[in-house]
Amino acid sequence: MWTIGVDLGGTNLRVGVINEAGQIVIEKSCSTNAEKGPNYVLNQMIQFIEEVKKGMDIHAIGIGSPGPLNPFEGIILEPPNLPGWRNIPLVERVKKATNLPVVLDNDANAAALAEATVGAGKDVNSVFYITVSTGIGGGYVLNKKIVQGAQGNCGEIGNMIVDPAGEGAPGLNKGALEALASGTAIGREGARLLGIKGGAKEVFQLAYEGNETAKQIIDRAVHYLAIGIANIVHTVNPEMIILGGGVMKSGDVILEPLKDKVKDFVYPSLRDSIQIKRAALDQKAGLIGAGLLAQK
Amino acid sequence: MWTIGVDLGGTNLRVGVINEAGQIVIEKSCSTNAEKGPNYVLNQMIQFIEEVKKGMDIHAIGIGSPGPLNPFEGIILEPPNLPGWRNIPLVERVKKATNLPVVLDNDANAAALAEATVGAGKDVNSVFYITVSTGIGGGYVLNKKIVQGAQGNCGEIGNMIVDPAGEGAPGLNKGALEALASGTAIGREGARLLGIKGGAKEVFQLAYEGNETAKQIIDRAVHYLAIGIANIVHTVNPEMIILGGGVMKSGDVILEPLKDKVKDFVYPSLRDSIQIKRAALDQKAGLIGAGLLAQK
Repeated sequence: MWTIGVDLGGTNLRVGVINEAGQIVIEKSCSTNAEKGPNYVLNQMIQFIEEVKKGMDIHAIGIGSPGPLNPFEGIILEPPNLPGWRNIPLVERVKKATNLPVVLDNDANAAALAEATVGAGKDVNSVFYITVSTGIGGGYVLNKKIVQGAQGNCGEIGNMIVDPAGEGAPGLNKGALEALASGTAIGREGARLLGIKGGAKEVFQLAYEGNETAKQIIDRAVHYLAIGIANIVHTVNPEMIILGGGVMKSGDVILEPLKDKVKDFVYPSLRDSIQIKRAALDQKAGLIGAGLLAQK
Repeated sequence: MWTIGVDLGGTNLRVGVINEAGQIVIEKSCSTNAEKGPNYVLNQMIQFIEEVKKGMDIHAIGIGSPGPLNPFEGIILEPPNLPGWRNIPLVERVKKATNLPVVLDNDANAAALAEATVGAGKDVNSVFYITVSTGIGGGYVLNKKIVQGAQGNCGEIGNMIVDPAGEGAPGLNKGALEALASGTAIGREGARLLGIKGGAKEVFQLAYEGNETAKQIIDRAVHYLAIGIANIVHTVNPEMIILGGGVMKSGDVILEPLKDKVKDFVYPSLRDSIQIKRAALDQKAGLIGAGLLAQK
């Protein structure tokens, strides 16, 4: 069964046809231009959908979008990454325009499904996917199905408290994982301790060049990420933790110390059995996952 | 289908016949006498099984036991609550003695299954059960099935880090939930701050009589429990949190403040939708759950 995946991002809009194997058959993309408002973006999205489905036997459409959203009613609520969008009945509107069944889920869940199905977790039964970029999000895929949670908030680990004495951030708990270990948090510490304005990217560059303060900022983020991962392990004990998102692209600077730290925080019997892997699909995870959403 | 449930506790051994509705048809129990060793207890267990199954059409046996254990291989590893027990192939031995299929799971998972199936969570689709007594354990039941986790460690929330600056305890992380909010932790703080030796029970009694320090000890445990619960909510967003175990029997002294605190730590959209309930089956949850284990 072929489906259309829509990856509605704050920066880019991608639309593609996804086959049963989770491969992208054809793809269109452009800048989202979210600031031009929902109608503009929706028209662009529907135009792409019409273009890619020409001559194809398409069964359904899956959309991955920044949250918060209501996956059960197909409504985008008020995502910080889509300014000006508020209570948009996205599923209804795309359904009307295309006459196809449409499902909506948040972008982290879509990426989690892609990684668990055709990415780094394709050979295991349970995956907890974590994306570390501007924010921190996640998705839990059990037996190749997304666990939504009762209110669609499964995987919202950015708000997990990992240090009650730690910093907060708007809309997040004091000491929340995202407030302490996201790209934004790393950038904030860079500004505070090093006086730089280049965000997480500059902190990583300085650490790479040997700057001790920059290294400590990254160590601190790794420490909190390790607590967050260990907490997930003791809560659901997934077969594999998969790490995606921009911050993880810094590569082994983060991944190897992180793996070591997680071992310090889990039961001894789990130390050698936990699998922690880098995401395999990179930027394509959202699009592929959106298509896979529609295949369920 | 009727099954036999075995609730192998550190204090009591209960064996019963459980019907399809999760009711106890017949029950036998005695002190476990764990200190007399595995052979003694195993003989008692098998004798009870023979007694209760007389004239009944029994299809399988389910055993709930203190962990750590290996549910996949049916082996009890080295539970602190069963001193001297080590690598006991319990499933194999009970199978041999009874000629019936036997399954083993930890006591918190068994209680979680009972509460989710015929207890406080019987009308919802996903339950995270938390037991707060000497230790803190849990079980996650999704669509009426226990989520085991890859290494059988799903629900091991006692080791979740809720305050990296907090106390530790043997075998647990520094700042682990169990080290900060269990009955043992409350008793330890009672000894330290009030010089009492009566454990959590005495702290609750003193708080009830108006002792401010005792109240603060309980508030602190409630605070950490609330963080733990909020972290679970943001990780798997269960439809209902069910609280069992001895400490929860102190009743509304804990439950109402805990519900309020959890609201402080979750996303606003979740504040009014989270259901937090007291366990409904009390001491019978383990026995009923063990029987239900064998019905799956």
